[in-house]
Amino acid sequence: MPSEFSLIDKYFNLYKTKAYKGIGDDAALLKKNNNYLWAISTDMLNEKTHFLPNTNPFNLGWKALAVNISDIYAMGGIPKFALLAIALPKLREDWIKEFSKGLFSCAKKYKVELIGGDTSKGPLSISICLLGEVLKNSTLLRSKAKREDDIWVTGELGLAALGLAKLKNKIQLPESLSRKAISRLEKPMLHSSIVQKMAKLSHSAIDISDGLIADLTHILEASKVGACISLQDIPMDPWMKKNKLFDMALSGGDDYQLIFTAPRRNRNKINMISKLPSVKLAKIGVIKKEKHLNIIDDKGSQYKIKKKGYDHFETK
Amino acid sequence: MPSEFSLIDKYFNLYKTKAYKGIGDDAALLKKNNNYLWAISTDMLNEKTHFLPNTNPFNLGWKALAVNISDIYAMGGIPKFALLAIALPKLREDWIKEFSKGLFSCAKKYKVELIGGDTSKGPLSISICLLGEVLKNSTLLRSKAKREDDIWVTGELGLAALGLAKLKNKIQLPESLSRKAISRLEKPMLHSSIVQKMAKLSHSAIDISDGLIADLTHILEASKVGACISLQDIPMDPWMKKNKLFDMALSGGDDYQLIFTAPRRNRNKINMISKLPSVKLAKIGVIKKEKHLNIIDDKGSQYKIKKKGYDHFETK
Repeated sequence: MPSEFSLIDKYFNLYKTKAYKGIGDDAALLKKNNNYLWAISTDMLNEKTHFLPNTNPFNLGWKALAVNISDIYAMGGIPKFALLAIALPKLREDWIKEFSKGLFSCAKKYKVELIGGDTSKGPLSISICLLGEVLKNSTLLRSKAKREDDIWVTGELGLAALGLAKLKNKIQLPESLSRKAISRLEKPMLHSSIVQKMAKLSHSAIDISDGLIADLTHILEASKVGACISLQDIPMDPWMKKNKLFDMALSGGDDYQLIFTAPRRNRNKINMISKLPSVKLAKIGVIKKEKHLNIIDDKGSQYKIKKKGYDHFETK
Repeated sequence: MPSEFSLIDKYFNLYKTKAYKGIGDDAALLKKNNNYLWAISTDMLNEKTHFLPNTNPFNLGWKALAVNISDIYAMGGIPKFALLAIALPKLREDWIKEFSKGLFSCAKKYKVELIGGDTSKGPLSISICLLGEVLKNSTLLRSKAKREDDIWVTGELGLAALGLAKLKNKIQLPESLSRKAISRLEKPMLHSSIVQKMAKLSHSAIDISDGLIADLTHILEASKVGACISLQDIPMDPWMKKNKLFDMALSGGDDYQLIFTAPRRNRNKINMISKLPSVKLAKIGVIKKEKHLNIIDDKGSQYKIKKKGYDHFETK
């Protein structure tokens, strides 16, 4: 069965466009003026695929917008205007009130304005289209990673997957970690404070929605390069590391952390950024010429994971 | 139970925006340059709410884009760039192939480029976000109808509702009319050739998605005016007129024809446009000061309809 990605290429990425950048990155790009581009993304959340039934509506409103903001950040952009299309199975005013509160809470935090939308009846589905602006010279494309670029990631990886495992009763967790992991899954926090700085220092970026390996692979394929990353440098919650949940950190989706690739000459500047309070930035590896992704464990051996990333249409 | 519209106002139209125009029209408006605005709309189609199961995927691809183009036309704009978010219950490549053909067929006809999107798993749901450009001085807002404006509509009304009634086996139709009505429902054709001309001659516009009365009422409420329309001037298929299906023409949704209100001084120019081949434009009434919508029948009496328009959340 073809994957989601081959499907898009085969049936939807068919024609050249007058847009600055069409299908194939976190957002499309249109000319705004001489210095700026519009970055435009759309992401849809569907019940049972992207969130469990009975997910807290406040968190769902937050997340529906946050995942789109994450796409704009991954282009090096500043989110600005959102349109919301939502299908609801029935009108439950209390649910909508909480959903709206969560959505506007996220909008306020990341300075986004809701300017339009569409509500209709149907199985719960939320689709947001977000416009942001991005400095033309600091636009981060998946295709611009260069050999010997350092690979940086924000935050801790695998927590959203851990939260999902907990919600599905597949794992026992300490209470505080359980709360943290579920919160990362349901209400992802984004790295607004460093995006603009990193955009000026980086060659390429992507947000981690499908998992570190899967999303890093998108950069590698688009840039026609490979990479070597070090397992022990992957930023993980200490409990996860102690329990060796490396595969979850490498392939767990829904983290909405960011991957940047930046030239080595900017390493000191980026290290300075990483020391700012509330910022977590870790250097996990290097871009290589050879078109292969190597993961090296703490003994210097090649590490193999079982599952590379998340594809909605995969046979489960 | 609150309607879709009061719901949007209560929970989603909460804050002022820096956009040129936010929630409350067929599309939001952002500044593009000194002379042009971006018009941005989003419309979602859900199975069972907006289309019947097993709808021909080619037509569905066409319609999903066409209903958004219709919103841009209703602002007096020219559609340009689309993003598609689609949830599919399973991967059926033949279905996607046909859907893509229909989408791109519509895109080609109305000169739209697909620049991005998102595919995921879920009950069939299609959300498109469309950007168009509109000349600032010719932008058609719902709120700009003026007293004594003529009210014009394109095409024939009620055909999509007739098609739906036929598909649900609620009506017997002559074979050729059946084909015509189902085609209007499933593959609406838009009036690209007259939009720019009408935009320069009109004060306001809206597209007919919820039914003539419901959508005209949106103009009247936004413009704080009323109207008087003549039943016999409503453009209808002759068979529908003969069978007195006036309520269907007045309140049937999904026609994607356009309503324009234009000053009387432009009547001759608009009459000239209406004589162009392939254009259907009918003058159906006049905007009035009194905040009430009167429908006058062929005997000069007030006509009352049973159902004003379509609300997805109404109790059926």
